[in-house]
Amino acid sequence: MGGMDRSNQGSLGGTPLDLPPAGWERGPGPLHRRLADALEALVLRGELPPGTALPTERELARRAAVSRATAAEAYRRLKASGRIDSRQGRGTWVAGTLAPAGRAPAESMGAVLEHPDGSIDLSLAAPEAGARERTAIGAALDHARGAVAGTGYEPAGSTALRAALADRPDEVLVTSGAQQAIGFVVEELVRPGEVVVVEDVTYVGALDAARRAGARLVAVPTGPGGVDVEALREAVVRHRPALVYLNPTHQSPTGSVLSDRDRAQIVDLAARTGTPVIDDRVLADLPFDDEGRPRPLRSFDPGAPIVTIGSLSKVAWAGLRVGWVRAEPALVRRLVPRRVVADLGGDVLAQAVALALLDEVPRLAAARALDLRRQHRHLTAALVQHLPEWEVAPSRGGTAAWVRLPVADARAVADAAAAHGVHVVAGSLLAPHGDMGDRLRLAVTQPPEVLDEAVARLAAAWSDLPGRGS
Amino acid sequence: MGGMDRSNQGSLGGTPLDLPPAGWERGPGPLHRRLADALEALVLRGELPPGTALPTERELARRAAVSRATAAEAYRRLKASGRIDSRQGRGTWVAGTLAPAGRAPAESMGAVLEHPDGSIDLSLAAPEAGARERTAIGAALDHARGAVAGTGYEPAGSTALRAALADRPDEVLVTSGAQQAIGFVVEELVRPGEVVVVEDVTYVGALDAARRAGARLVAVPTGPGGVDVEALREAVVRHRPALVYLNPTHQSPTGSVLSDRDRAQIVDLAARTGTPVIDDRVLADLPFDDEGRPRPLRSFDPGAPIVTIGSLSKVAWAGLRVGWVRAEPALVRRLVPRRVVADLGGDVLAQAVALALLDEVPRLAAARALDLRRQHRHLTAALVQHLPEWEVAPSRGGTAAWVRLPVADARAVADAAAAHGVHVVAGSLLAPHGDMGDRLRLAVTQPPEVLDEAVARLAAAWSDLPGRGS
Repeated sequence: MGGMDRSNQGSLGGTPLDLPPAGWERGPGPLHRRLADALEALVLRGELPPGTALPTERELARRAAVSRATAAEAYRRLKASGRIDSRQGRGTWVAGTLAPAGRAPAESMGAVLEHPDGSIDLSLAAPEAGARERTAIGAALDHARGAVAGTGYEPAGSTALRAALADRPDEVLVTSGAQQAIGFVVEELVRPGEVVVVEDVTYVGALDAARRAGARLVAVPTGPGGVDVEALREAVVRHRPALVYLNPTHQSPTGSVLSDRDRAQIVDLAARTGTPVIDDRVLADLPFDDEGRPRPLRSFDPGAPIVTIGSLSKVAWAGLRVGWVRAEPALVRRLVPRRVVADLGGDVLAQAVALALLDEVPRLAAARALDLRRQHRHLTAALVQHLPEWEVAPSRGGTAAWVRLPVADARAVADAAAAHGVHVVAGSLLAPHGDMGDRLRLAVTQPPEVLDEAVARLAAAWSDLPGRGS
Repeated sequence: MGGMDRSNQGSLGGTPLDLPPAGWERGPGPLHRRLADALEALVLRGELPPGTALPTERELARRAAVSRATAAEAYRRLKASGRIDSRQGRGTWVAGTLAPAGRAPAESMGAVLEHPDGSIDLSLAAPEAGARERTAIGAALDHARGAVAGTGYEPAGSTALRAALADRPDEVLVTSGAQQAIGFVVEELVRPGEVVVVEDVTYVGALDAARRAGARLVAVPTGPGGVDVEALREAVVRHRPALVYLNPTHQSPTGSVLSDRDRAQIVDLAARTGTPVIDDRVLADLPFDDEGRPRPLRSFDPGAPIVTIGSLSKVAWAGLRVGWVRAEPALVRRLVPRRVVADLGGDVLAQAVALALLDEVPRLAAARALDLRRQHRHLTAALVQHLPEWEVAPSRGGTAAWVRLPVADARAVADAAAAHGVHVVAGSLLAPHGDMGDRLRLAVTQPPEVLDEAVARLAAAWSDLPGRGS
């Protein structure tokens, strides 16, 4: 739909003569992908503005000295990602002239959600619904019938579900998953240019939300014992952040658990400085060990500005988009208008299913945690055997393994793995400033036999890779 | 949770001595409400910054010369709306120091979603799920069982549902209702300060979304035949809007239908100027007459930048949060990353229910339209009888009646009606610039006996009202 473009496609002086750019063919991966990536990079850098005419497939093939099929495939990729557009008789041009689409999907959570069929997905760390979950959710669906009544608008969420999630329902806003919950809190508390303190590394969806709100990200190190509390204190004192976002329990992606002593110090810091701290507990019910459940941050001081985020996505099913914010009632009341503008309130059936499932959640979580623990061990053992140069960090829970490579280009490893049909996440995606270039996150949500095949493909990709260190 | 406030509550010099402000008692409605409104106005104007200490109930009662109960009720209202906070031993203070919460809920869609129990709601124009919808949705729930599989993440929506909604699934993004659909399109196409052209009057949720995106609203008149096409053309040429938002079919709230000739002109204008036009079709399947179904804007020119919005909320059930955007694939691809950051993708069960319901939608819509037509006529007749000074505008479909009052203060009428236990929407809420002060929107989604009681209460409120014109 060329009419969507407000510029005149013909006005930019025709097709640039230096397309594709010199050196486009450098790097790993198939030719068509390198060609597409090179063109996309020019678009992202603004060197090919929207509306710029591109060479015909035939002409591109000639200039790049590749086959017509390779040129066609490069254009197909770019068209599929919305970078370019074409129409019979009008040629091919750089798409869009409207507001910038923000970061490219490949740089955000979106990269984790869509892959070609037939490949193994170790990038999305959300477990599938198996027989156990299907049975429990099916039973809950029967209860959901009773929820079909009234207009269904309850912007803060189903009152019954809120009451089941907390003694005081006015402390709860039910959301479409934890991602929406994090987004509302960020939007409400953070103005453009203000600082959000996050762990280096952390959950990519939280980075997405903070960036979309125009926040400046300040990263503090996180290690096997969780976030570095002294570094966090310094960051809070120095930057006076509008918000701190933490995963203290089975940190995403490292799987660390913060000690009670460190928790108490962080809560004290929050209370004394008035700095709101998000305690993301989405992975808190998925321990790999039996060392007891750490207490939520808010339990250390009910008066401190702690915002707890929860969800059924990882414990029950990601397709059941039910999460929540738990916070002081005054903040919850300020979030409700955001919910109204966003989508008027959550799906009633999903909330009815969630309510009917709540009694089953401890059982589902325990079974899921056992699966994930077993799969984490299995993957670790397979990597030790087939990729001994890769180092798996110890983890105390969650849905992923955190791997250190002997090379600094995890992105290239991830690309090579994708070419071999297995999707993994380069650490830079999870790092607020794009570093962590030697890390990979591998989801452990697949069964052992899939993990074995994934490791075989990873090993093949690794052995193909030029310059893979020692 | 006072710790959420970053200012020091004691630092602002104690309780202002001029509280409540002089003249607070002017206006209609109960005393406690006027007192609360006067205090809220000071907060909204920034004259009482967050953290400002407020008088005790006893002191407020003394200063305002009202009973202690009235002062307490005023504070209770303000606390319930999040404007103030209090704690035993620490007194009462103006809440919040963080980012402004935007417009007060009372000024947006939120005002339509929450009311006290026991009152009649003619403000929310979303029908309840009756026996017909319960049966159909219950049957669809049985099909939803099959959807519990995989991880459930499909950011653009269920592929099966997208395919059912359009021949080309890549033209569809499934959303959590039409409100989310409108929000994504506005966010993607409109930068802060850019113009969005809307009808005067229009759907309040679209105004909310445009305002939240920082748009400048330009209003063009709309009448019994729909939007004034000449005025729209002038607005587009003069303001070069980033987006036009229209309800051409059973316009919300006027119920008008735009002619095919006007549609063709608008589509031509969109195509020639490259201006994206939203065709909101949420009410399109709810005609009050048998004059045939008008064609969607996009059918006039598939190459024009028309973005169609649809939903099952009004036809099936508002609690089923399933809507969609239909647009050129390049725009749909740009919206998907917004969906990912917003909530990772829609609830799978809701989409499975929607898919299973689609075959029933024509039948459900026809039955709903007959109900609404009958109720619109019933309400009109009751108003003619009991409130002959009120004038009901002719309507060709939708979920509401649009009423003209012989006085210019519909807000006062709405307040008086609320005090008599019936909620209606003042026209100013639906007007981009807050005018339409002599209009009321009355939902016709209630059955005739409730409408009769509502009209009796409206008549009582009207006869109580001082200075209600001739």
